[in-house]
Amino acid sequence: MNSPEYNKLKKLTEEHILDFLPDIDQKCITLYDSMKYSLTAGGKRLRPVMLMAACEMCGESASFALPYAIAAEYIQTYSLIHDDLPAMDNDDYRRGKLTNHKVFGEDIAILAGDGLLSSANEAMNKTMLLYLDDEVKLKRLVRASFEICKGTGARGMVAGQVADVENEGKNCSKDMLDFIHMNKTAAFIKSMCVAGCYLGGGNQQFIEDMSVYGECTGLAFQIIDDILDVIGDEKEMGKKTGVDAALGKATYPALHGLEASKKRAIELLSKARAAIEKYYDEAEVFNGILDFLESQII
Amino acid sequence: MNSPEYNKLKKLTEEHILDFLPDIDQKCITLYDSMKYSLTAGGKRLRPVMLMAACEMCGESASFALPYAIAAEYIQTYSLIHDDLPAMDNDDYRRGKLTNHKVFGEDIAILAGDGLLSSANEAMNKTMLLYLDDEVKLKRLVRASFEICKGTGARGMVAGQVADVENEGKNCSKDMLDFIHMNKTAAFIKSMCVAGCYLGGGNQQFIEDMSVYGECTGLAFQIIDDILDVIGDEKEMGKKTGVDAALGKATYPALHGLEASKKRAIELLSKARAAIEKYYDEAEVFNGILDFLESQII
Repeated sequence: MNSPEYNKLKKLTEEHILDFLPDIDQKCITLYDSMKYSLTAGGKRLRPVMLMAACEMCGESASFALPYAIAAEYIQTYSLIHDDLPAMDNDDYRRGKLTNHKVFGEDIAILAGDGLLSSANEAMNKTMLLYLDDEVKLKRLVRASFEICKGTGARGMVAGQVADVENEGKNCSKDMLDFIHMNKTAAFIKSMCVAGCYLGGGNQQFIEDMSVYGECTGLAFQIIDDILDVIGDEKEMGKKTGVDAALGKATYPALHGLEASKKRAIELLSKARAAIEKYYDEAEVFNGILDFLESQII
Repeated sequence: MNSPEYNKLKKLTEEHILDFLPDIDQKCITLYDSMKYSLTAGGKRLRPVMLMAACEMCGESASFALPYAIAAEYIQTYSLIHDDLPAMDNDDYRRGKLTNHKVFGEDIAILAGDGLLSSANEAMNKTMLLYLDDEVKLKRLVRASFEICKGTGARGMVAGQVADVENEGKNCSKDMLDFIHMNKTAAFIKSMCVAGCYLGGGNQQFIEDMSVYGECTGLAFQIIDDILDVIGDEKEMGKKTGVDAALGKATYPALHGLEASKKRAIELLSKARAAIEKYYDEAEVFNGILDFLESQII
């Protein structure tokens, strides 16, 4: 993911990561501090970069997509804060730093997550307000927001989380594992690719191609995450490895074996690559993501 | 709150309470079950009724506001589920039934809350999609959604929750208590009144009057809730009383005394009444709410 364009969009995300939080009163500054703590804890910023890159490929500026990109990172961050809670994965560290609840307590961490999800929606809605008199862009904004809601909500990411939690320590079927991966991870990533196209005013063919790209890349991303939990280096990853096995989590390597998992990931990455082949010259960010993911397991 | 119109809108809410959840896969049916459990656990349905009643007062049908009314109840329900968690108020019962986490476990309860907030936004967004080619109504929908986001998010309800949690067992100032009440409760209720006006296409004067009504009623509502926690009957309320004191919560009676609390609530209800006096004939629902609230403490 080290292409110059990826790094430019990642930098843009990090420079503006706090800009779309609503004004928060000094009387509950802890809410701001706790949201800020997790928002500035690093990370690949994969989702916002994808959203802006897809928008740019349609000929629209990245800055038009910026509020939505930041909103997506708020959603990603809320999901990590809640996922790390003692009642969920009970993680003490995330990206080499203490998790939100270890610093601010469980109550504030729950509320910081709620505040971030609310702020994501507020940021997208506020952008719509700014374009109330620009019919074309308003429609793009509404369509993009709906894609993000779908990908991250009760028939997307949250559904995947529930299935994941419910299948811990159980004999999870391959079918169920695919459902978990598709919803927990791929649906959100796919929604970034599709919503980015909507924001940029892309045509139907491009939306369909990016939808295939997003889904395959998202699935590969989760399988590779599972693989790295088995073979990865703790220091390099900034988090503990072997966690999935310890939690009795259903993972691709556990169900299919390490070699079959690698093979499946490579297949998915190839399918993703094929979906955007015809846009090769403009798809530096998206090709770079595939190169990086592949390099982690070969 | 027993006016025929209130009951009609409450019934409408309850008949459609599950209709705006997205299709949820059988593979994570627990998510659906847990959301449904709390959505159908009763309650006054105050917020959705207010939203639809305000919309109707502008001459628009309640059914136009229905998806937003249901979305508001999803938000209210998510906030109660998270508020009841062991890390927060640690309540075993809500409205005479076991709280969500007592039935489904903490992990699912956290995710049910996340799913409900996501579904609220998805429902509002989906409504916008339906009106993409109706410029006038699309603008109303965007404005209304923004009001709801503001009232319930990180500078509204979530801010109030954080301040509430942080001031437990502390010497809370009167100023801070006002901040908590305004954000934890009044901001959401006010947003219902204002968003309802936007949905109905109400004029600026009506929006301002309903904004005053909503804020005063919301503040009175919370002060009366505090008072009932001291003087109320457990059976009638379907929840434990004396809880605030046990948790060391900052409440109006604790800081100002019972009589001063009643006086303040009555003052606020009068101010709310005055704000909508000129619409008396159409304001059955809103006057009925004031009558009911007053009857609880005199």
